[in-house]
Amino acid sequence: MSNSILKVFGARIKSIRLEKGLSQEQLGLIAELDRTYISGIERGLRNVSLINIERLALALNIEPAELLKFSESDHV
Amino acid sequence: MSNSILKVFGARIKSIRLEKGLSQEQLGLIAELDRTYISGIERGLRNVSLINIERLALALNIEPAELLKFSESDHV
Repeated sequence: MSNSILKVFGARIKSIRLEKGLSQEQLGLIAELDRTYISGIERGLRNVSLINIERLALALNIEPAELLKFSESDHV
Repeated sequence: MSNSILKVFGARIKSIRLEKGLSQEQLGLIAELDRTYISGIERGLRNVSLINIERLALALNIEPAELLKFSESDHV
């Protein structure tokens, strides 16, 4: 059970964040999460929990399920 | 930020598990998670992390995103 889901999730968050024109700082403020935590998520270093997945989804104005929809382009 | 996502996720896991005809014990064995942890998830008491969401998805033979697709019937 590799940590690839952490990397793919992180890449997904980063691609949606950039799509929405948000900085890590801005996403952190909206989601009430620290910028360094956002940075760690995007680098695939954080085993994000449901409650924070929901915070990120709300902040990015997207359904939580969409955050776990990994396309080929999200694979790093 | 209520813990409703934990309850809705738990209800979703339970409904898919039952659909697949698995007991909590069987799901736990396949997912390599303790039965009592599965029980806690289904009661909305566990803030499940990405790696365990992936374990559950693999064990239930379903995409991780599907586990976060909450229909009305999943709301408790």
